[in-house]
Amino acid sequence: MPELRKNPLTDEWVIIATERAKRPEDFQKKTAKLPEEQERVDTCPFCVGNEKMTPPETFAFREKETSANSPGWRVRIVPNKFPAQEIHEVIIETPSHSKSIANLLPQEAEEVILAYQQRYLAAEANSKIKQITIFRNHGLTTGASKLHPHSQLIAVPVLSQKFRNQEKNATDYWQKQGKCLYCVLAKEEIEKKERIILSTPYFTAFTPYASQSPFEVWIFPTRHQHSFGNISAEETKDLAKILPQILFKFYSKLDNPDYNYIIHSYFENTADKQAKHWFLQILPRLTPIGGYELGSGIFINIVKPEAAAEFLRLQATGCKPQVAGKEE
Amino acid sequence: MPELRKNPLTDEWVIIATERAKRPEDFQKKTAKLPEEQERVDTCPFCVGNEKMTPPETFAFREKETSANSPGWRVRIVPNKFPAQEIHEVIIETPSHSKSIANLLPQEAEEVILAYQQRYLAAEANSKIKQITIFRNHGLTTGASKLHPHSQLIAVPVLSQKFRNQEKNATDYWQKQGKCLYCVLAKEEIEKKERIILSTPYFTAFTPYASQSPFEVWIFPTRHQHSFGNISAEETKDLAKILPQILFKFYSKLDNPDYNYIIHSYFENTADKQAKHWFLQILPRLTPIGGYELGSGIFINIVKPEAAAEFLRLQATGCKPQVAGKEE
Repeated sequence: MPELRKNPLTDEWVIIATERAKRPEDFQKKTAKLPEEQERVDTCPFCVGNEKMTPPETFAFREKETSANSPGWRVRIVPNKFPAQEIHEVIIETPSHSKSIANLLPQEAEEVILAYQQRYLAAEANSKIKQITIFRNHGLTTGASKLHPHSQLIAVPVLSQKFRNQEKNATDYWQKQGKCLYCVLAKEEIEKKERIILSTPYFTAFTPYASQSPFEVWIFPTRHQHSFGNISAEETKDLAKILPQILFKFYSKLDNPDYNYIIHSYFENTADKQAKHWFLQILPRLTPIGGYELGSGIFINIVKPEAAAEFLRLQATGCKPQVAGKEE
Repeated sequence: MPELRKNPLTDEWVIIATERAKRPEDFQKKTAKLPEEQERVDTCPFCVGNEKMTPPETFAFREKETSANSPGWRVRIVPNKFPAQEIHEVIIETPSHSKSIANLLPQEAEEVILAYQQRYLAAEANSKIKQITIFRNHGLTTGASKLHPHSQLIAVPVLSQKFRNQEKNATDYWQKQGKCLYCVLAKEEIEKKERIILSTPYFTAFTPYASQSPFEVWIFPTRHQHSFGNISAEETKDLAKILPQILFKFYSKLDNPDYNYIIHSYFENTADKQAKHWFLQILPRLTPIGGYELGSGIFINIVKPEAAAEFLRLQATGCKPQVAGKEE
């Protein structure tokens, strides 16, 4: 019989209904399919040489003596041409049209994360802003309108109900238990092992107990820290290894599925910040979101998180730049 | 600049970002495309004659002197073969494989609604159940795994965070204002007119102020009533007209888009039931749900609800059974 599980961070319920499913292997296709290497597309506003097709850049990592809004950049950030809010930026992760964060070199991925951090801090400095979301839509079914590898940052002057619930849960736990709910959760996962995919010196990647969709993964910083904005140089380097490593497992073992990832973070001036903890959530989009999920607020997940972790722990196949990180 | 709007029923924020959009007409295709009439498919477990392919029926409207689990039914309800929960039923809306609730005759649609009501009441009678969702997934991107017209009912022994927030909002409003928040909202919409699509003696259909997606429609009963289970015979007849009428507008004017609809209802034994009000929510799935929506809990809608209502008010074209209901 299906199982009800509650996400301790949000108090949201999910139904793990494996009778209707699919073992992890059923999502697997025979060959790893990396996107075909295509350096540059004339009509793509995110490609190198097409800098004039976007609004002027707000930030870039670029080669010495190259100037803004011209070639020579490695990561480039521009305002979204059709902003959803006052602060809505596009983080162009690489000049190459068909690379992906899953096959970036660690030093390349590191600059993407440093760029996230820069813009997160810049948005946080705006006193009107109450919620900042850094996210990535991979694949056309997930909201991506352009294939060129990019992430986005949207900052809004309101707090969503979802975020408010999450904050309240963390604060309530802190006030009752005197501990960070997220730290307790990560400790339990590490001790139990069954949902751990891999760990690095500063991060642990696991499939959460109440995964809302098949192969959902959380990358948790093991150091207690409320804000992604405070990530250290060592943590940045480490995240630049573990994130592509997990994404490459998706590529390799689940045939390049569409996915979203989201950085959940708390503000520097938030109340009870010792109660809070940033983390990165990856949501592969292997099953559709239906009327039940949208209407009831309860997600149905057809793959057991323990089975998903076991499957993802296996070594990824296919060629990619070697990255460090201990496989469990 | 995009606009932030708050759903008063849930306190959820949405962003209305029309700069990146699309006028209503951009979603419109030239010809209304009704599914091709196909009476029966040998391999479809929901088709007439294939009753043995499903678990035994729990309810049916059928011709006199025909027996359970054999042909002669007009609406048939069976347990889901792969249940997501203990109570998970499939409401097969018609014996015909390729009809849709949008092109059912009013007397046919009426039996679908009566069947919903029967099974809603049966689920509510189970004392373990805390939340019942009746919903319809139309189209393969929305979670539907079978094309044969059907809806589903899932009943769970927990309350979702989303539903809890909705209940709390209604109760808080009642305690402060001594009025039903939903009734106040419907009255405002009717007075303002700009988001009304059509009204019938017992229902008003409008695009909500904080629509989470393009062309979202709420069908609101104008009589104050917390539970869909208490819908009267006249209301049933009336809903059986207005619901297909709205869905036919989607077919005709938006080229048969994928959509979900959900009945939101409160239990008979709920606290403060005078504060609550059932309604039906229709969510066309014209734009993908991306990482921002999933991560932040804030939806981005690229069509202004006022423009959507104006567009949907226009007479639908194409042939369908005539149904009553005053166009605004």
